[in-house]
Amino acid sequence: MDTMGRHVIAELWNCNADKLNNMALIEQIFVNAALKAGAEIREVAFHKFAPQGVSGVVIISESHLTIHSFPEHGYASIDVYTCGDRIDPNVAAQYIVEALEAETVEKVEVPRGTGPVKVKEFQAM
Amino acid sequence: MDTMGRHVIAELWNCNADKLNNMALIEQIFVNAALKAGAEIREVAFHKFAPQGVSGVVIISESHLTIHSFPEHGYASIDVYTCGDRIDPNVAAQYIVEALEAETVEKVEVPRGTGPVKVKEFQAM
Repeated sequence: MDTMGRHVIAELWNCNADKLNNMALIEQIFVNAALKAGAEIREVAFHKFAPQGVSGVVIISESHLTIHSFPEHGYASIDVYTCGDRIDPNVAAQYIVEALEAETVEKVEVPRGTGPVKVKEFQAM
Repeated sequence: MDTMGRHVIAELWNCNADKLNNMALIEQIFVNAALKAGAEIREVAFHKFAPQGVSGVVIISESHLTIHSFPEHGYASIDVYTCGDRIDPNVAAQYIVEALEAETVEKVEVPRGTGPVKVKEFQAM
């Protein structure tokens, strides 16, 4: 398999706080996001923190999707990393942004697996 | 919990190919790396691909560690993301670099959860 990958790092602000604290919902959103992008799901692991917050990952054949949510701040930190050129990680990222009702989003796409690279600045979505 | 986090993205080249294809070993290395950095482990999920390659994640209270390995290219793509300022993700990253015997490493540290940020260029470790 080719090492080339695309890694979208996104910062989601002013999300729906109730959604950010709903582990079952977030897990479903991430599974749907992976499928919508055309990824093949391999492992799913999510964790609910007390008193609030959710962390989780969906491992796909093409790499991974992760989230860490902070309901008290309306913030979610997400990563969508896809190897190869068959899948666009932005499709999954955009689905998650809309599902969590993020009002402000910054993201950056980091090329992976291609040697030394320059990383662009965060950009508003 | 504060949203502030540090996300180390590292590209490991010329690793020990046998280690890159050993899922049990990689899982142990990642658990050890998390513990060495002082993190609290919450979930562990790894997957072995056919004919080769391993993907996996360790979810910690402070965020996550991930890997995608390509034994045939001697390459591993790793992320170590830690929220808060109690833990240094570079401690875990360095442990992984040494354990996988990477000869060439580039990494970049991305600040998370602090609003729009500038991302520096990849640097040799």
